[in-house]
Amino acid sequence: MAQNEKIPYKIYLSEEEIPRQWYNVRADMKNKPAPLINPGTHEPMSAADLAPVFCDELVAQELDNDTAYIDIPQEIRDFYKMYRPSPLVRAYCLEEKLDTPAKIYYKFEGNNTSGSHKLNSAIAQAYYAKKQGLKGVTTETGAGQWGTALSMACAYLGLDCKVYMVKCSYEQKPFRREVMRTYGAQVTPSPSDTTQVGRKILAENPDTTGSLGCAISEAVEVAVGTEGYRYVLGSVLNQVLLHQSVIGLETKAALDKYGIVPDMIIGCAGGGSNLGGLVSPFMGEKLRGERDYRIIAVEPASCPSFTRGKFVYDFCDTGMVTPLAKMYTLGSGFIPSANHAGGLRYHGMSPILSQLYHDGLMEAVSVEQTAVFEAAEMFARVEGILPAPESSHAIRVAIDEALKCKQTGEEKTIVFGLTGTGYFDLVAYEKYNNGEMDDHIPTDEELAVGFAGIPRFEGNEI
Amino acid sequence: MAQNEKIPYKIYLSEEEIPRQWYNVRADMKNKPAPLINPGTHEPMSAADLAPVFCDELVAQELDNDTAYIDIPQEIRDFYKMYRPSPLVRAYCLEEKLDTPAKIYYKFEGNNTSGSHKLNSAIAQAYYAKKQGLKGVTTETGAGQWGTALSMACAYLGLDCKVYMVKCSYEQKPFRREVMRTYGAQVTPSPSDTTQVGRKILAENPDTTGSLGCAISEAVEVAVGTEGYRYVLGSVLNQVLLHQSVIGLETKAALDKYGIVPDMIIGCAGGGSNLGGLVSPFMGEKLRGERDYRIIAVEPASCPSFTRGKFVYDFCDTGMVTPLAKMYTLGSGFIPSANHAGGLRYHGMSPILSQLYHDGLMEAVSVEQTAVFEAAEMFARVEGILPAPESSHAIRVAIDEALKCKQTGEEKTIVFGLTGTGYFDLVAYEKYNNGEMDDHIPTDEELAVGFAGIPRFEGNEI
Repeated sequence: MAQNEKIPYKIYLSEEEIPRQWYNVRADMKNKPAPLINPGTHEPMSAADLAPVFCDELVAQELDNDTAYIDIPQEIRDFYKMYRPSPLVRAYCLEEKLDTPAKIYYKFEGNNTSGSHKLNSAIAQAYYAKKQGLKGVTTETGAGQWGTALSMACAYLGLDCKVYMVKCSYEQKPFRREVMRTYGAQVTPSPSDTTQVGRKILAENPDTTGSLGCAISEAVEVAVGTEGYRYVLGSVLNQVLLHQSVIGLETKAALDKYGIVPDMIIGCAGGGSNLGGLVSPFMGEKLRGERDYRIIAVEPASCPSFTRGKFVYDFCDTGMVTPLAKMYTLGSGFIPSANHAGGLRYHGMSPILSQLYHDGLMEAVSVEQTAVFEAAEMFARVEGILPAPESSHAIRVAIDEALKCKQTGEEKTIVFGLTGTGYFDLVAYEKYNNGEMDDHIPTDEELAVGFAGIPRFEGNEI
Repeated sequence: MAQNEKIPYKIYLSEEEIPRQWYNVRADMKNKPAPLINPGTHEPMSAADLAPVFCDELVAQELDNDTAYIDIPQEIRDFYKMYRPSPLVRAYCLEEKLDTPAKIYYKFEGNNTSGSHKLNSAIAQAYYAKKQGLKGVTTETGAGQWGTALSMACAYLGLDCKVYMVKCSYEQKPFRREVMRTYGAQVTPSPSDTTQVGRKILAENPDTTGSLGCAISEAVEVAVGTEGYRYVLGSVLNQVLLHQSVIGLETKAALDKYGIVPDMIIGCAGGGSNLGGLVSPFMGEKLRGERDYRIIAVEPASCPSFTRGKFVYDFCDTGMVTPLAKMYTLGSGFIPSANHAGGLRYHGMSPILSQLYHDGLMEAVSVEQTAVFEAAEMFARVEGILPAPESSHAIRVAIDEALKCKQTGEEKTIVFGLTGTGYFDLVAYEKYNNGEMDDHIPTDEELAVGFAGIPRFEGNEI
């Protein structure tokens, strides 16, 4: 095949080709994402309202629906050079294994110590906090990738970092905790007795293994109540998708270099940080009517925000201390089955992606975790990279689409996001290796419990 | 600084620039490494003698002291393309942190799922086994990097893989075991009751936590006793240093691209696989009188083969089932303190490196593990990569040399090998984070116990 001779296994851009500006997909959206609103007044949150929670520059980015390109400060670009550009890999070995005419590419974001794409936004958020003269930041972490990324960014810049880590991850992943401690972070299992909201949740449910929503509540409470601190978040927010656009911009630049036009772009979706970043420039072309792509979000069947959630205003956290965001949500009280080891456990979804999905500009599918780990194992064996369970959701659907091409004979070009590595997910792999993994799909009754907690007010019917 | 503008953070070669031939430093050595000998007859091992243990092509490579360049088969180069060329990184952030005029570069071999350089030889050894029509291979692993690498290579080629894992690592690193299992390997803690030698060692010392030397004995016994199997080894052997020369060849090509001439090259040394590979082309220039470099081996003070060992013939394994190799050794019965968490626990050293060290062509220093982890933490925080404890030995000495430059004002160029990542070494990092790490330096009396086990015969006085 002629193309085989020309396209290398890994397409690397040079450091000079790292984007100089982030791309803000909101600028090209006809229907903008709904604003965050105050849960009491239902009025849109102003910059002043958000200032006690987020640092000023990030508030401006959060609220900016109009500026298409925002400069990446040189200091952040310098940090990016430590691990970017990330490679766009042609999955020759996977194609051969599947015996498919499809051409498969993946953008690999795992070649850094945080093990995922999360570092792209962590350094940006830490940088703006430092620039504002703050002492430190608080955050939550689930699987631990975001907490690790933020710890690394804070160590680099000399900022304090307090991480609330979902208790089940804290216990299942002691090594993640030690990476964060090596980078100087203070790590607390959530729910904890260090916050009002944590004590309340523990009193109501002493055996809870925690949730992202609950850890967010604790981190926000501490940030708002501590002088010189702000809260930072690794997903969901508009600012995060902005920073993560480096993934998509690099992907597009690498594809353009070889004249490759993808037919579909596939990404896993928890809060939407990777998917939103990966697809943004492609979605921009689609929104501007320049080109069409299939864009596919993949979520776990055990936490199906897009495919079974409601598109309404809801709290971003379990403790109901955050503003309301309009998004696909399972309800802030929804906690996925403890049997689900595959990450992507957040009840809601990025408001930007929610709006795009609502407007029919992207698709969503849900997959069960045994099938996800089957794909992960196959991928590891042929492509050599042990993927994160989260990323493996995208691998699953990329494989499924490539197998469809095998049936139809179509030579489609598939691009998917390989967000990270699974080196800290071996408890889950062990379960899979031992045949002890099970799939839990919430019943309608179980979902109804989460939906019942969604705030009701005029215009927010579910 | 003008150079800062020109030299990127990471120098990447293209896939086309992956070496097409390995470099065999023995060809340029005036004093060749001593041959392996039969422990009974003290005669050099012939190809026929080695054939039951190693596959034929590898025996040929093991015995070839003359061919300077050996072709890398295309299939192996294709596998290399999945994770090579590895970057040569300019440690700008470390230089700034140290405020040194030294220029520091590191060749980073950790960006693959095995987490180290070991994959370079694993794929070669698995390839030749497959080519010979074998069913599978056996090996030992200590920290787990080699076992993981071999599992990956075997999964890729469809070979069986039986790994004997040093018991203390098996227990401290259950996740390493799961990675290997994900790649389809059969992993057994060593010593085990699956071999004669294992049962003997267990009978004599039921509480032993194992050693590399002991695991080698078991793996060799199984290979020799099982139809269609051969034994493979991740370090020490001449063939391994040959395969690992890709590290040095790429390093040299990257330096040459920017006209950089290093003053010193630093590598950690356990059995010598990384150091031997990294330094080989530079050593070649030195041996041919073309250029001079300082070449520095760094070993743990708790397992000081070079700095306190004897240069004699000794067994490669604890069970004394292997041929004898002439090398710097602490005695095959030497087992480093269980308190030592920093890897590099092998009692002997590559015969090639041993000869070069004996001939005054390289230096060796030993470092204590607390100092090693201090260097690891500093490196992680400024360079963003969590290093393997093994690699951190080289970091320690690179930092020490850079600090000397700060005192003298010399702008020396330092290149060191960053062999791998520490994602599976968090038990050790946790000890360090908790201030519970201690340094054990063996006393002369403790070393004497190991030396007592070295075979004595005419010409092998210690």
